[in-house]
Amino acid sequence: MTEFAESAESNLEPRLPVYDAIRRRRDVRAEFTGKPIAENVLERILGAGHSAPSVGNTQPWDFVVVRDPATLHSFADHVADARLRFAQSLPEERKKTFDAIKIEGIRESGMGVVVTYDRGRGGQHILGRHTIDDTGLFSVVLAIQNLWLAAVAENVGIGWVSFYDESYLTELLKIPEPVRPIAWLCVGDVAEFQQVPDLERFGWRGRRPLADAIHFEKF
Amino acid sequence: MTEFAESAESNLEPRLPVYDAIRRRRDVRAEFTGKPIAENVLERILGAGHSAPSVGNTQPWDFVVVRDPATLHSFADHVADARLRFAQSLPEERKKTFDAIKIEGIRESGMGVVVTYDRGRGGQHILGRHTIDDTGLFSVVLAIQNLWLAAVAENVGIGWVSFYDESYLTELLKIPEPVRPIAWLCVGDVAEFQQVPDLERFGWRGRRPLADAIHFEKF
Repeated sequence: MTEFAESAESNLEPRLPVYDAIRRRRDVRAEFTGKPIAENVLERILGAGHSAPSVGNTQPWDFVVVRDPATLHSFADHVADARLRFAQSLPEERKKTFDAIKIEGIRESGMGVVVTYDRGRGGQHILGRHTIDDTGLFSVVLAIQNLWLAAVAENVGIGWVSFYDESYLTELLKIPEPVRPIAWLCVGDVAEFQQVPDLERFGWRGRRPLADAIHFEKF
Repeated sequence: MTEFAESAESNLEPRLPVYDAIRRRRDVRAEFTGKPIAENVLERILGAGHSAPSVGNTQPWDFVVVRDPATLHSFADHVADARLRFAQSLPEERKKTFDAIKIEGIRESGMGVVVTYDRGRGGQHILGRHTIDDTGLFSVVLAIQNLWLAAVAENVGIGWVSFYDESYLTELLKIPEPVRPIAWLCVGDVAEFQQVPDLERFGWRGRRPLADAIHFEKF
Protein backbone atom coordinates (compact mmCIF):
# COMPACT_ATOMS: atom_id res chain seq x y z
CA MET A 1 0.00 0.00 0.00
CA THR A 2 1.00 3.58 -0.37
CA GLU A 3 0.68 7.17 0.73
CA PHE A 4 0.10 7.12 4.48
CA ALA A 5 2.83 6.69 7.04
CA GLU A 6 2.27 4.30 9.93
CA SER A 7 2.14 5.77 13.41
CA ALA A 8 3.14 4.11 16.66
CA GLU A 9 -0.49 4.21 17.74
CA SER A 10 -1.81 2.62 14.58
CA ASN A 11 0.57 -0.32 14.98
CA LEU A 12 -1.52 -1.68 17.85
CA GLU A 13 -4.40 -3.92 16.89
CA PRO A 14 -7.41 -2.64 18.87
CA ARG A 15 -9.08 -5.08 21.27
CA LEU A 16 -12.72 -3.95 21.19
CA PRO A 17 -14.97 -6.90 22.12
CA VAL A 18 -17.01 -8.29 19.25
CA TYR A 19 -20.35 -7.64 20.97
CA ASP A 20 -19.37 -4.00 21.51
CA ALA A 21 -18.39 -3.69 17.86
CA ILE A 22 -21.75 -5.12 16.81
CA ARG A 23 -23.64 -2.62 18.99
CA ARG A 24 -21.47 0.39 18.12
CA ARG A 25 -21.48 -0.21 14.35
CA ARG A 26 -23.44 2.32 12.29
CA ASP A 27 -23.95 2.99 8.61
CA VAL A 28 -22.07 6.29 8.57
CA ARG A 29 -23.02 9.30 6.44
CA ALA A 30 -22.47 12.58 8.27
CA GLU A 31 -19.75 11.84 10.82
CA PHE A 32 -16.64 11.51 8.62
CA THR A 33 -13.80 13.85 9.64
CA GLY A 34 -11.87 13.60 6.37
CA LYS A 35 -8.68 12.73 8.29
CA PRO A 36 -6.74 10.09 6.31
CA ILE A 37 -6.56 6.67 7.93
CA ALA A 38 -3.17 5.02 8.37
CA GLU A 39 -2.00 2.50 5.82
CA ASN A 40 -1.66 -0.35 8.30
CA VAL A 41 -5.14 0.34 9.70
CA LEU A 42 -6.60 0.05 6.21
CA GLU A 43 -4.65 -3.14 5.66
CA ARG A 44 -5.96 -4.67 8.90
CA ILE A 45 -9.53 -3.78 7.94
CA LEU A 46 -9.21 -5.28 4.47
CA GLY A 47 -7.46 -8.30 6.00
CA ALA A 48 -10.50 -8.80 8.23
CA GLY A 49 -12.69 -8.87 5.12
CA HIS A 50 -10.32 -11.29 3.47
CA SER A 51 -10.64 -13.65 6.48
CA ALA A 52 -14.33 -14.26 5.82
CA PRO A 53 -15.76 -17.68 5.02
CA SER A 54 -16.55 -18.35 1.37
CA VAL A 55 -18.33 -21.07 -0.54
CA GLY A 56 -15.83 -23.73 -1.60
CA ASN A 57 -13.13 -21.45 -0.13
CA THR A 58 -13.26 -19.48 -3.39
CA GLN A 59 -12.60 -16.08 -1.73
CA PRO A 60 -14.39 -14.45 -4.68
CA TRP A 61 -14.02 -10.86 -3.40
CA ASP A 62 -11.73 -8.00 -4.41
CA PHE A 63 -11.30 -4.57 -2.86
CA VAL A 64 -10.78 -1.48 -5.01
CA VAL A 65 -9.45 1.42 -2.93
CA VAL A 66 -10.49 4.73 -4.48
CA ARG A 67 -8.98 8.03 -3.28
CA ASP A 68 -8.74 10.01 -6.50
CA PRO A 69 -10.89 13.12 -5.89
CA ALA A 70 -12.03 13.13 -9.53
CA THR A 71 -13.46 9.62 -9.18
CA LEU A 72 -15.10 10.43 -5.84
CA HIS A 73 -16.74 13.51 -7.39
CA SER A 74 -17.99 11.64 -10.45
CA PHE A 75 -19.49 8.92 -8.32
CA ALA A 76 -21.10 11.40 -5.91
CA ASP A 77 -22.74 13.19 -8.84
CA HIS A 78 -24.11 9.92 -10.15
CA VAL A 79 -25.49 9.05 -6.70
CA ALA A 80 -27.16 12.47 -6.46
CA ASP A 81 -29.08 11.65 -9.66
CA ALA A 82 -30.15 8.27 -8.29
CA ARG A 83 -31.31 9.99 -5.12
CA LEU A 84 -33.45 12.36 -7.13
CA ARG A 85 -35.06 9.47 -9.02
CA PHE A 86 -35.92 7.75 -5.74
CA ALA A 87 -37.34 10.95 -4.22
CA GLN A 88 -39.56 11.44 -7.26
CA SER A 89 -40.98 7.92 -6.86
CA LEU A 90 -42.18 8.58 -3.30
CA PRO A 91 -45.59 9.68 -2.05
CA GLU A 92 -45.51 13.25 -0.68
CA GLU A 93 -45.36 12.28 3.00
CA ARG A 94 -42.45 9.86 2.55
CA LYS A 95 -40.68 12.34 0.30
CA LYS A 96 -40.65 14.88 3.13
CA THR A 97 -39.15 12.36 5.54
CA PHE A 98 -36.59 11.29 2.95
CA ASP A 99 -35.49 14.87 2.16
CA ALA A 100 -33.84 15.21 5.60
CA ILE A 101 -31.83 12.01 5.30
CA LYS A 102 -28.23 12.09 4.14
CA ILE A 103 -27.49 8.99 2.07
CA GLU A 104 -23.75 9.14 1.47
CA GLY A 105 -20.41 10.57 2.58
CA ILE A 106 -18.49 9.83 -0.61
CA ARG A 107 -16.44 13.02 -0.72
CA GLU A 108 -16.28 13.70 3.04
CA SER A 109 -14.85 10.27 3.87
CA GLY A 110 -12.07 10.76 1.32
CA MET A 111 -12.02 7.10 0.40
CA GLY A 112 -14.23 4.51 -1.22
CA VAL A 113 -13.65 0.79 -1.02
CA VAL A 114 -15.56 -1.00 -3.73
CA VAL A 115 -16.07 -4.67 -2.98
CA THR A 116 -16.58 -6.91 -5.98
CA TYR A 117 -17.64 -10.49 -6.73
CA ASP A 118 -15.86 -12.67 -9.30
CA ARG A 119 -18.13 -15.61 -10.04
CA GLY A 120 -15.47 -17.14 -12.27
CA ARG A 121 -13.03 -17.68 -9.42
CA GLY A 122 -12.64 -21.27 -8.32
CA GLY A 123 -13.32 -22.83 -11.69
CA GLN A 124 -16.18 -25.05 -12.72
CA HIS A 125 -16.79 -27.19 -9.65
CA ILE A 126 -17.58 -24.98 -6.64
CA LEU A 127 -18.12 -27.06 -3.52
CA GLY A 128 -21.40 -25.80 -2.06
CA ARG A 129 -22.54 -23.64 -4.99
CA HIS A 130 -24.03 -26.35 -7.21
CA THR A 131 -27.33 -26.23 -5.32
CA ILE A 132 -27.52 -22.51 -4.50
CA ASP A 133 -25.74 -20.31 -6.97
CA ASP A 134 -26.12 -17.17 -4.84
CA THR A 135 -23.75 -18.56 -2.20
CA GLY A 136 -20.88 -17.04 -4.19
CA LEU A 137 -22.47 -13.63 -3.86
CA PHE A 138 -23.19 -14.29 -0.19
CA SER A 139 -19.50 -14.92 0.48
CA VAL A 140 -18.68 -11.37 -0.59
CA VAL A 141 -21.27 -9.94 1.79
CA LEU A 142 -19.83 -11.96 4.70
CA ALA A 143 -16.49 -10.33 3.90
CA ILE A 144 -18.12 -6.90 4.00
CA GLN A 145 -19.52 -7.47 7.49
CA ASN A 146 -16.14 -8.71 8.76
CA LEU A 147 -14.53 -5.57 7.37
CA TRP A 148 -17.26 -3.37 8.83
CA LEU A 149 -16.87 -4.67 12.38
CA ALA A 150 -13.07 -4.48 12.24
CA ALA A 151 -13.45 -0.87 11.12
CA VAL A 152 -15.54 -0.05 14.19
CA ALA A 153 -12.73 -1.35 16.40
CA GLU A 154 -10.37 1.02 14.55
CA ASN A 155 -12.72 4.00 14.99
CA VAL A 156 -13.21 3.97 11.24
CA GLY A 157 -16.69 4.47 9.89
CA ILE A 158 -18.21 2.57 6.98
CA GLY A 159 -21.12 3.87 4.93
CA TRP A 160 -22.61 1.50 2.36
CA VAL A 161 -23.90 3.42 -0.65
CA SER A 162 -26.37 1.59 -2.91
CA PHE A 163 -27.90 4.52 -4.82
CA TYR A 164 -26.11 3.77 -8.08
CA ASP A 165 -26.43 1.81 -11.29
CA GLU A 166 -24.10 -1.15 -11.43
CA SER A 167 -23.23 -0.51 -15.05
CA TYR A 168 -22.05 3.02 -14.16
CA LEU A 169 -19.73 1.81 -11.41
CA THR A 170 -18.43 -1.02 -13.58
CA GLU A 171 -17.42 1.49 -16.22
CA LEU A 172 -16.05 4.05 -13.73
CA LEU A 173 -13.60 1.56 -12.18
CA LYS A 174 -12.99 -0.53 -15.30
CA ILE A 175 -14.30 -3.67 -13.66
CA PRO A 176 -13.95 -6.54 -16.16
CA GLU A 177 -16.53 -9.23 -16.98
CA PRO A 178 -17.72 -11.31 -15.15
CA VAL A 179 -16.79 -9.35 -12.02
CA ARG A 180 -19.72 -7.54 -10.39
CA PRO A 181 -19.50 -4.58 -7.98
CA ILE A 182 -21.40 -5.44 -4.80
CA ALA A 183 -20.93 -2.35 -2.66
CA TRP A 184 -19.42 1.09 -2.56
CA LEU A 185 -18.24 1.59 1.00
CA CYS A 186 -17.30 5.06 2.20
CA VAL A 187 -14.41 4.42 4.59
CA GLY A 188 -12.97 7.04 6.88
CA ASP A 189 -12.14 8.34 10.31
CA VAL A 190 -15.24 9.38 12.27
CA ALA A 191 -15.91 12.04 14.90
CA GLU A 192 -18.38 9.69 16.64
CA PHE A 193 -20.75 6.83 15.97
CA GLN A 194 -24.41 7.78 16.30
CA GLN A 195 -26.17 5.78 18.99
CA VAL A 196 -29.36 5.33 16.97
CA PRO A 197 -29.37 4.43 13.25
CA ASP A 198 -30.08 7.41 10.98
CA LEU A 199 -33.21 5.90 9.43
CA GLU A 200 -34.64 5.44 12.92
CA ARG A 201 -33.60 8.92 14.12
CA PHE A 202 -35.15 10.58 11.10
CA GLY A 203 -38.39 8.61 11.33
CA TRP A 204 -37.97 6.56 8.17
CA ARG A 205 -38.37 3.14 9.80
CA GLY A 206 -38.06 1.83 13.37
CA ARG A 207 -36.77 -1.39 14.89
CA ARG A 208 -38.57 -4.71 14.86
CA PRO A 209 -38.49 -6.57 18.20
CA LEU A 210 -36.07 -9.51 18.24
CA ALA A 211 -38.81 -11.83 19.52
CA ASP A 212 -40.81 -11.25 16.32
CA ALA A 213 -37.87 -12.52 14.25
CA ILE A 214 -37.47 -15.83 16.11
CA HIS A 215 -39.54 -18.89 15.21
CA PHE A 216 -39.38 -22.42 16.55
CA GLU A 217 -39.37 -25.62 14.48
CA LYS A 218 -41.46 -24.21 11.62
CA PHE A 219 -41.60 -20.70 10.21
CA MET B 1 -37.31 -19.07 24.32
CA THR B 2 -37.65 -22.44 25.94
CA GLU B 3 -36.05 -25.61 27.12
CA PHE B 4 -32.62 -24.69 28.47
CA ALA B 5 -31.98 -23.20 31.88
CA GLU B 6 -29.62 -20.27 32.20
CA SER B 7 -26.42 -20.80 34.11
CA ALA B 8 -24.44 -18.25 36.09
CA GLU B 9 -21.61 -18.60 33.60
CA SER B 10 -23.81 -18.08 30.56
CA ASN B 11 -25.15 -14.81 32.01
CA LEU B 12 -21.86 -13.09 31.30
CA GLU B 13 -21.47 -11.60 27.85
CA PRO B 14 -18.04 -12.74 26.63
CA ARG B 15 -15.50 -10.05 25.75
CA LEU B 16 -13.49 -11.67 22.96
CA PRO B 17 -11.95 -8.93 20.77
CA VAL B 18 -13.49 -8.63 17.31
CA TYR B 19 -10.18 -9.30 15.52
CA ASP B 20 -9.72 -12.51 17.54
CA ALA B 21 -13.26 -13.61 16.68
CA ILE B 22 -12.57 -12.97 12.98
CA ARG B 23 -9.39 -15.09 13.09
CA ARG B 24 -10.83 -17.88 15.25
CA ARG B 25 -14.08 -18.26 13.27
CA ARG B 26 -14.37 -21.49 11.30
CA ASP B 27 -17.11 -23.15 9.26
CA VAL B 28 -17.65 -26.04 11.67
CA ARG B 29 -18.51 -29.60 10.63
CA ALA B 30 -16.79 -32.20 12.81
CA GLU B 31 -16.20 -30.43 16.13
CA PHE B 32 -19.71 -30.22 17.58
CA THR B 33 -20.01 -31.79 21.05
CA GLY B 34 -23.80 -32.13 21.03
CA LYS B 35 -24.00 -30.34 24.39
CA PRO B 36 -27.05 -28.03 24.39
CA ILE B 37 -26.31 -24.33 24.45
CA ALA B 38 -27.96 -22.15 27.08
CA GLU B 39 -31.09 -20.23 26.17
CA ASN B 40 -29.59 -16.83 26.93
CA VAL B 41 -26.49 -17.62 24.87
CA LEU B 42 -28.69 -18.45 21.88
CA GLU B 43 -30.63 -15.26 22.43
CA ARG B 44 -27.44 -13.15 22.52
CA ILE B 45 -26.25 -14.77 19.28
CA LEU B 46 -29.54 -14.17 17.48
CA GLY B 47 -29.60 -10.65 18.93
CA ALA B 48 -26.23 -10.04 17.32
CA GLY B 49 -27.69 -11.11 13.97
CA HIS B 50 -30.66 -8.85 14.55
CA SER B 51 -28.32 -5.88 15.11
CA ALA B 52 -27.02 -6.00 11.54
CA PRO B 53 -27.43 -3.14 9.09
CA SER B 54 -30.16 -3.55 6.50
CA VAL B 55 -31.21 -1.70 3.40
CA GLY B 56 -33.81 0.94 4.29
CA ASN B 57 -33.69 -0.47 7.86
CA THR B 58 -36.05 -3.22 6.68
CA GLN B 59 -34.51 -5.95 8.91
CA PRO B 60 -35.79 -8.52 6.40
CA TRP B 61 -34.40 -11.56 8.25
CA ASP B 62 -36.05 -14.23 10.41
CA PHE B 63 -34.48 -17.04 12.39
CA VAL B 64 -36.10 -20.47 12.58
CA VAL B 65 -34.63 -22.51 15.44
CA VAL B 66 -34.91 -26.23 14.66
CA ARG B 67 -34.21 -28.83 17.36
CA ASP B 68 -36.76 -31.54 16.51
CA PRO B 69 -34.65 -34.66 15.80
CA ALA B 70 -37.10 -35.78 13.11
CA THR B 71 -36.57 -32.53 11.18
CA LEU B 72 -32.79 -32.70 11.62
CA HIS B 73 -32.77 -36.26 10.29
CA SER B 74 -34.95 -35.45 7.29
CA PHE B 75 -32.78 -32.52 6.35
CA ALA B 76 -29.56 -34.51 6.82
CA ASP B 77 -30.88 -37.21 4.47
CA HIS B 78 -31.74 -34.61 1.86
CA VAL B 79 -28.25 -33.10 2.16
CA ALA B 80 -26.67 -36.54 1.74
CA ASP B 81 -28.45 -36.86 -1.60
CA ALA B 82 -27.24 -33.43 -2.71
CA ARG B 83 -23.72 -34.43 -1.71
CA LEU B 84 -23.93 -37.52 -3.87
CA ARG B 85 -25.08 -35.48 -6.86
CA PHE B 86 -22.13 -33.12 -6.46
CA ALA B 87 -19.64 -35.99 -6.07
CA GLN B 88 -20.94 -37.54 -9.28
CA SER B 89 -20.38 -34.30 -11.17
CA LEU B 90 -16.66 -34.20 -10.30
CA PRO B 91 -13.65 -35.43 -12.28
CA GLU B 92 -12.03 -38.48 -10.62
CA GLU B 93 -9.16 -36.59 -8.97
CA ARG B 94 -11.43 -33.97 -7.37
CA LYS B 95 -13.88 -36.65 -6.34
CA LYS B 96 -11.17 -38.37 -4.28
CA THR B 97 -10.31 -35.11 -2.52
CA PHE B 98 -13.98 -34.39 -1.90
CA ASP B 99 -14.70 -37.84 -0.44
CA ALA B 100 -12.63 -37.06 2.68
CA ILE B 101 -14.42 -33.77 3.40
CA LYS B 102 -17.29 -33.62 5.87
CA ILE B 103 -19.84 -31.08 4.68
CA GLU B 104 -22.31 -30.85 7.59
CA GLY B 105 -22.92 -31.47 11.28
CA ILE B 106 -26.70 -31.26 11.15
CA ARG B 107 -27.41 -34.05 13.64
CA GLU B 108 -24.27 -33.70 15.76
CA SER B 109 -24.81 -30.00 16.47
CA GLY B 110 -28.34 -30.72 17.69
CA MET B 111 -29.65 -27.44 16.34
CA GLY B 112 -30.24 -25.72 13.06
CA VAL B 113 -30.92 -22.02 12.68
CA VAL B 114 -32.45 -21.29 9.32
CA VAL B 115 -32.08 -17.66 8.31
CA THR B 116 -34.64 -16.36 5.86
CA TYR B 117 -35.24 -13.29 3.70
CA ASP B 118 -38.63 -11.60 3.39
CA ARG B 119 -38.48 -9.32 0.38
CA GLY B 120 -41.98 -8.07 1.14
CA ARG B 121 -40.96 -6.47 4.41
CA GLY B 122 -40.76 -2.68 4.35
CA GLY B 123 -43.44 -2.14 1.75
CA GLN B 124 -43.12 -0.72 -1.71
CA HIS B 125 -40.54 2.03 -1.29
CA ILE B 126 -37.30 0.58 0.07
CA LEU B 127 -34.69 3.30 0.60
CA GLY B 128 -31.56 1.98 -1.12
CA ARG B 129 -33.10 -1.00 -2.93
CA HIS B 130 -34.59 0.79 -5.94
CA THR B 131 -31.24 0.71 -7.77
CA ILE B 132 -29.91 -2.67 -6.59
CA ASP B 133 -32.60 -5.15 -5.71
CA ASP B 134 -30.15 -7.66 -4.19
CA THR B 135 -29.39 -5.31 -1.30
CA GLY B 136 -32.34 -6.87 0.55
CA LEU B 137 -30.74 -10.27 0.24
CA PHE B 138 -27.37 -8.79 1.24
CA SER B 139 -28.86 -7.47 4.49
CA VAL B 140 -29.67 -11.02 5.57
CA VAL B 141 -26.11 -12.15 4.90
CA LEU B 142 -24.74 -9.28 6.99
CA ALA B 143 -26.92 -10.56 9.83
CA ILE B 144 -25.47 -14.04 9.40
CA GLN B 145 -21.90 -12.81 9.76
CA ASN B 146 -22.78 -10.80 12.88
CA LEU B 147 -24.35 -13.92 14.36
CA TRP B 148 -21.37 -16.06 13.35
CA LEU B 149 -18.78 -13.83 15.04
CA ALA B 150 -20.87 -13.51 18.21
CA ALA B 151 -21.10 -17.31 18.29
CA VAL B 152 -17.30 -17.62 18.21
CA ALA B 153 -17.12 -15.39 21.30
CA GLU B 154 -19.57 -17.78 22.99
CA ASN B 155 -17.52 -20.86 22.00
CA VAL B 156 -20.41 -21.86 19.79
CA GLY B 157 -19.66 -23.20 16.33
CA ILE B 158 -21.56 -22.33 13.17
CA GLY B 159 -21.56 -24.53 10.09
CA TRP B 160 -23.27 -23.13 6.99
CA VAL B 161 -24.84 -25.92 4.95
CA SER B 162 -25.69 -25.12 1.33
CA PHE B 163 -26.07 -28.63 -0.13
CA TYR B 164 -29.86 -28.49 -0.40
CA ASP B 165 -32.65 -27.51 -2.72
CA GLU B 166 -34.42 -24.38 -1.58
CA SER B 167 -37.83 -25.79 -2.44
CA TYR B 168 -37.18 -28.75 -0.13
CA LEU B 169 -36.27 -26.56 2.84
CA THR B 170 -39.18 -24.21 2.17
CA GLU B 171 -41.57 -27.14 2.36
CA LEU B 172 -39.83 -28.75 5.38
CA LEU B 173 -40.18 -25.61 7.53
CA LYS B 174 -43.43 -24.33 6.00
CA ILE B 175 -41.82 -21.10 4.89
CA PRO B 176 -44.51 -18.94 3.24
CA GLU B 177 -44.22 -16.98 -0.02
CA PRO B 178 -42.36 -14.69 -0.67
CA VAL B 179 -39.94 -15.62 2.14
CA ARG B 180 -36.78 -17.36 0.95
CA PRO B 181 -34.46 -19.53 3.06
CA ILE B 182 -30.91 -18.16 2.78
CA ALA B 183 -28.91 -20.50 4.99
CA TRP B 184 -29.14 -23.55 7.19
CA LEU B 185 -26.70 -22.93 10.01
CA CYS B 186 -25.68 -25.81 12.27
CA VAL B 187 -25.29 -24.17 15.69
CA GLY B 188 -23.74 -25.89 18.67
CA ASP B 189 -21.12 -26.11 21.36
CA VAL B 190 -17.70 -27.07 19.97
CA ALA B 191 -14.75 -29.02 21.37
CA GLU B 192 -12.35 -26.70 19.54
CA PHE B 193 -12.07 -24.47 16.49
CA GLN B 194 -9.74 -25.83 13.84
CA GLN B 195 -6.84 -23.48 13.15
CA VAL B 196 -6.92 -24.04 9.39
CA PRO B 197 -10.16 -24.14 7.35
CA ASP B 198 -11.25 -27.67 6.42
CA LEU B 199 -11.11 -27.07 2.67
CA GLU B 200 -7.51 -25.94 3.03
CA ARG B 201 -6.54 -28.81 5.38
CA PHE B 202 -8.02 -31.40 3.03
CA GLY B 203 -6.40 -29.94 -0.06
CA TRP B 204 -9.58 -28.71 -1.76
CA ARG B 205 -8.51 -25.08 -2.18
CA GLY B 206 -5.86 -22.87 -0.54
CA ARG B 207 -5.74 -19.23 0.44
CA ARG B 208 -5.29 -16.32 -1.93
CA PRO B 209 -2.81 -13.67 -0.74
CA LEU B 210 -4.48 -10.50 0.54
CA ALA B 211 -2.30 -8.34 -1.72
CA ASP B 212 -3.85 -10.01 -4.79
CA ALA B 213 -7.29 -8.90 -3.65
CA ILE B 214 -6.44 -5.22 -3.26
CA HIS B 215 -6.54 -2.81 -6.22
CA PHE B 216 -6.02 0.94 -6.35
CA GLU B 217 -8.22 3.48 -8.15
CA LYS B 218 -9.31 1.07 -10.91
CA PHE B 219 -9.91 -2.65 -10.81
